[in-house]
Amino acid sequence: MNFISPDPDLHMLASDNSSGVHPEVLEAMFAANTGHVVSYGNDTVTEHAIEVLRQRFGGNTEVFFVLTGTGANVLALSAMTPPYGAVLCSDCSHIATDECGAPERNVGCKLTPVATHEGKIHADDLRACIDAARIPHQNVPRVVSVTQSTELGTVYSADELAGIASVCREAGWLLHMDGARYANACAHLDTSLAALSSEVGVDVLSLGATKNGAMYAEAVLVWTDRVDTTAISFLRKQHTQLASKMRFAAAQFQAMFEGDLWLRNARHANAMARRLADGVRSIPGIEIIHPVQANGVFARIPGSLLEPARELQYFYDWEGEGHVVRWMTSFDTTEAHIDRFVEGLRDRV
Amino acid sequence: MNFISPDPDLHMLASDNSSGVHPEVLEAMFAANTGHVVSYGNDTVTEHAIEVLRQRFGGNTEVFFVLTGTGANVLALSAMTPPYGAVLCSDCSHIATDECGAPERNVGCKLTPVATHEGKIHADDLRACIDAARIPHQNVPRVVSVTQSTELGTVYSADELAGIASVCREAGWLLHMDGARYANACAHLDTSLAALSSEVGVDVLSLGATKNGAMYAEAVLVWTDRVDTTAISFLRKQHTQLASKMRFAAAQFQAMFEGDLWLRNARHANAMARRLADGVRSIPGIEIIHPVQANGVFARIPGSLLEPARELQYFYDWEGEGHVVRWMTSFDTTEAHIDRFVEGLRDRV
Amino acid sequence: MNFISPDPDLHMLASDNSSGVHPEVLEAMFAANTGHVVSYGNDTVTEHAIEVLRQRFGGNTEVFFVLTGTGANVLALSAMTPPYGAVLCSDCSHIATDECGAPERNVGCKLTPVATHEGKIHADDLRACIDAARIPHQNVPRVVSVTQSTELGTVYSADELAGIASVCREAGWLLHMDGARYANACAHLDTSLAALSSEVGVDVLSLGATKNGAMYAEAVLVWTDRVDTTAISFLRKQHTQLASKMRFAAAQFQAMFEGDLWLRNARHANAMARRLADGVRSIPGIEIIHPVQANGVFARIPGSLLEPARELQYFYDWEGEGHVVRWMTSFDTTEAHIDRFVEGLRDRV
Amino acid sequence: MNFISPDPDLHMLASDNSSGVHPEVLEAMFAANTGHVVSYGNDTVTEHAIEVLRQRFGGNTEVFFVLTGTGANVLALSAMTPPYGAVLCSDCSHIATDECGAPERNVGCKLTPVATHEGKIHADDLRACIDAARIPHQNVPRVVSVTQSTELGTVYSADELAGIASVCREAGWLLHMDGARYANACAHLDTSLAALSSEVGVDVLSLGATKNGAMYAEAVLVWTDRVDTTAISFLRKQHTQLASKMRFAAAQFQAMFEGDLWLRNARHANAMARRLADGVRSIPGIEIIHPVQANGVFARIPGSLLEPARELQYFYDWEGEGHVVRWMTSFDTTEAHIDRFVEGLRDRV
Repeated sequence: MNFISPDPDLHMLASDNSSGVHPEVLEAMFAANTGHVVSYGNDTVTEHAIEVLRQRFGGNTEVFFVLTGTGANVLALSAMTPPYGAVLCSDCSHIATDECGAPERNVGCKLTPVATHEGKIHADDLRACIDAARIPHQNVPRVVSVTQSTELGTVYSADELAGIASVCREAGWLLHMDGARYANACAHLDTSLAALSSEVGVDVLSLGATKNGAMYAEAVLVWTDRVDTTAISFLRKQHTQLASKMRFAAAQFQAMFEGDLWLRNARHANAMARRLADGVRSIPGIEIIHPVQANGVFARIPGSLLEPARELQYFYDWEGEGHVVRWMTSFDTTEAHIDRFVEGLRDRV
Repeated sequence: MNFISPDPDLHMLASDNSSGVHPEVLEAMFAANTGHVVSYGNDTVTEHAIEVLRQRFGGNTEVFFVLTGTGANVLALSAMTPPYGAVLCSDCSHIATDECGAPERNVGCKLTPVATHEGKIHADDLRACIDAARIPHQNVPRVVSVTQSTELGTVYSADELAGIASVCREAGWLLHMDGARYANACAHLDTSLAALSSEVGVDVLSLGATKNGAMYAEAVLVWTDRVDTTAISFLRKQHTQLASKMRFAAAQFQAMFEGDLWLRNARHANAMARRLADGVRSIPGIEIIHPVQANGVFARIPGSLLEPARELQYFYDWEGEGHVVRWMTSFDTTEAHIDRFVEGLRDRV
Repeated sequence: MNFISPDPDLHMLASDNSSGVHPEVLEAMFAANTGHVVSYGNDTVTEHAIEVLRQRFGGNTEVFFVLTGTGANVLALSAMTPPYGAVLCSDCSHIATDECGAPERNVGCKLTPVATHEGKIHADDLRACIDAARIPHQNVPRVVSVTQSTELGTVYSADELAGIASVCREAGWLLHMDGARYANACAHLDTSLAALSSEVGVDVLSLGATKNGAMYAEAVLVWTDRVDTTAISFLRKQHTQLASKMRFAAAQFQAMFEGDLWLRNARHANAMARRLADGVRSIPGIEIIHPVQANGVFARIPGSLLEPARELQYFYDWEGEGHVVRWMTSFDTTEAHIDRFVEGLRDRV
Repeated sequence: MNFISPDPDLHMLASDNSSGVHPEVLEAMFAANTGHVVSYGNDTVTEHAIEVLRQRFGGNTEVFFVLTGTGANVLALSAMTPPYGAVLCSDCSHIATDECGAPERNVGCKLTPVATHEGKIHADDLRACIDAARIPHQNVPRVVSVTQSTELGTVYSADELAGIASVCREAGWLLHMDGARYANACAHLDTSLAALSSEVGVDVLSLGATKNGAMYAEAVLVWTDRVDTTAISFLRKQHTQLASKMRFAAAQFQAMFEGDLWLRNARHANAMARRLADGVRSIPGIEIIHPVQANGVFARIPGSLLEPARELQYFYDWEGEGHVVRWMTSFDTTEAHIDRFVEGLRDRV
């Protein structure tokens, strides 16, 4: 992973954060560059962006802009659980596998993996965790963390989420959602932004826009009074995630959510993933191993195809039996990119 | 501090991070927005920006881009001291007074204040800390942290820094510099960028460009092999400071340091501070209490003038006897802003 | 401090934790050694010791036995403040100067020193800290921590403590007391154990018996419902302070507090300190610099006397102008020890 | 687990830390109670105990006494891995399942479970972890932690440990052993104490004597210069594990290891476990599910037998399919206890 590619066309499928920034986002950032304002978020640009998010997610939404996805997750969990709590999450969750232990180190908590199917936790599997901890020798569950859309390109339905939220309420736990690719889920299910979070009982959402065409736009959204939002203000600073010139982060949210840019971008990326999946399905030896619902395609491919395929497009190997690979699409992936890749694969099998 | 001002002209002196972004920085960010690249810094834009900094600070400079100044300081200190170490710093240092305890929480270390004069630590005062800790009941010093330019608008000379570095070498400590306003110091002393850091024995520099006209451009620069730079790669992720679309942070450094934008901006801000100091010196009852060497002016003013003055320009009260206030200038402060403020003050005395 | 003395008579004044264990304490530990019990505190010995402490400190006392004084303080503070809180304490407090940064590292909080006079914080000086933090850049005070008796051998009166507690209530802070030498304070003022803690508004007490003749007997006592005692059960385990064979720690508390052993021991140690102070007061060149109220004597002595004096008894230098030394007495210091030391000093002046 | 039993005979099989203290240990503690010594371990009793351990474990052994098993593990791991490291351990390891997340919170690291068979990690399974981390997004392995004897009552052979140590050397990892029941392993294999730790490549051992008849005797033993033992001195204080009256912890080690008390106690406990296993094997419906090599017996029993059995002896349910229970024997378990329990079970089937 430590190489520098001279060819930007080679990384169209590597990751959605390999993409650049949508022009409308850049425009909004430029527009925010007028004169001096109070720093650290006490400015009209930030206030307006918060208002936009409230219109999308509900008037009682508390909003905290941060700078990275890991920062958003750490801040959210830090406000949701004491250090002796456990966060029930999938064993392929980003917080458990790709944040270099940031939740454990920064929050002090334990991440407890629960069984998953296609990247999704089932409500019934959570029930077994109620009152199961040996007190005080084991961390007690305080939070369930789900990822929407999941790390495996699948999407929780509103009903599935409501079921999980119901177990959380019953058990006295809080429900966190890692929404680094939240827009892709809403686009897939054709729902409003509120429909898969505030309206189904999610307590705190790490809302990411970076992967969907922003530059560095992440936020923590809170809907429960069981999370102390005054604490979040301090924790954001203490966890190094308080931007001094915050208006430029806020402007990205405005660009993304005031109109339908979030939806256009996510729909397009999802469509490109489906196009890719449809294209490769007919190639002998390639097997799509998860439903393609968001912007990721996970496929098992012949070992002999790995290197030839990577000459067409760079991509990452994934864990799993055999040669499992991940292809991610973005807001700016073109049909031509997809078709050329599919054709190339077919030629090389 | 929790208000939102409708008037951008009212915050010209509040803080240098109340300013916006210099057009050349925005241009460079725009230029970096071409196609897909490897994320997390393995891209040509980032590599080029690192090369630019090496040209400025020395070929052996290791560079780690981060997102906030507190993030830079936490990362630097985290790589410089074990949790049981102490960081000797001034009691008005930003790390000790304005980062909500982020160094203590994230690094685990203790911040031990040492005597300062006009915001500066003197080498002789550090000597008293050698072998003074009661082992193992007290944290042993591992790092000296100085701020350049200081939180009080003063600047360490190269000789002063060399003297401190010499004590550090003698004692086996590392020397950290918080350079959130580093350019202002070099501009004041008319030196190269290397002259006040790598060339005088600084081991690690938190280099900030945000306050000098960038959007979110902070970096940790390392010159010593006593700091494990492999560790920094992991710690940057673990401390939530690894940007996925890093090229946009890197582009800001390129804009700032490839040419002389850093110098033009800092010189201008410094000149505006001197103009302001010169202007108010003749106003009865106003006393400039520290040498005005960088872009900050600290003044004791009559209590009756506080509110009238704040109608002209918003500014922060500072600690100290009587009514001490801080006025900060920026890359885009104009002579007109300064003159209007001075005249306004004179009218209101 | 890294030497091993062959002569136990040489360390009678070095520290009260240089002493051994009172025979009645050993007896109680021996008596507790009968058969198998539920581990981790769910046994009748522990339950009985808790009951004893409730009789002494009030029926609503929650009790958590731990193993070290630093462990008690860390556990107490960990339950009293979030990581972004500040603990207002004296700059000579044990938590700030002699615990190797354990509170900062383990709790994540900041220790903010406040002015002291003879080791004591005054209520009026605390008022200045109300609403003084720059939010969210500075840790907000959540706890005031006082040491009773203080690190300088002085004792807060009940009125002084009530005054501090009153400011705490007004400000919404909690009041913590480091009672490593709590018995000495009660003995000095001839009060009940409750009179200087639960009855004057202390919320949490780190109660130490180790220095007063126990082996390893420390406890956290809680009187407020603003501290979550369920959390303490988990935090005690997480902070490594949960003893498996807890009955043996509990037995020490029973021995100490069921009868009046705590009082006999403390009175004796206090009396020996007074005897020592009275003895040396008449020696030319020796100055007692703090009121001798508990079991410590702080004196300024001629530099030329330091080494000769240390041949008589080992003791520690203390910070302060000139040659300030600390002499500590214990439950088993004898009049003969004191008198021999005083005579020896007189001979060597 | 929150009940208090009036009947000490009811907990003979609950846990080895339900037991009391062996008389020879108490004797040694009493003998250490003579006069004043330098506190915090700089005394002759402590020095002698360290010497005893060096004779048992090798002259190059560095020894750090602590107070709890979790304290020993936290201190060991804290000295062996940076916060961004991973500790490879079994998913039934005490550090992962029974320390309330203390390693994660105190060290900052991640615990990464690896496959186990009967509680034991196999060297071959560790190889797959070499160079497998996605850098810098995943914690890199730094330590392998094995438990000897294991949490399932099994024992690693010297060869098995040497194989694991060999992978560690190859990979640049350190090898930690949680030896809360280390004596039981040596007794089972009839080896010296050095034979299963220092002589087979263990770098750091958490050596516990509490479960084998001591009161609170735990130690961290170090054999590698890749662990900074100066750091351990500070970390022991910072992690709240530095006892002031350390001689009393040291005396327990002297009692246990100067002669063969460690061996007598462990042999007896092991023999009682074998007697128990042999006794129940012939009872229909009871299945011993792991080799009985140390002092634990794990059995699957009929669900209908659970409560009747618990009237005979209290014991803990264990995870696993069906009704798996754990019975632990101790240095003072008698043949009569075992036989009565076996007969009672037989009557109740």
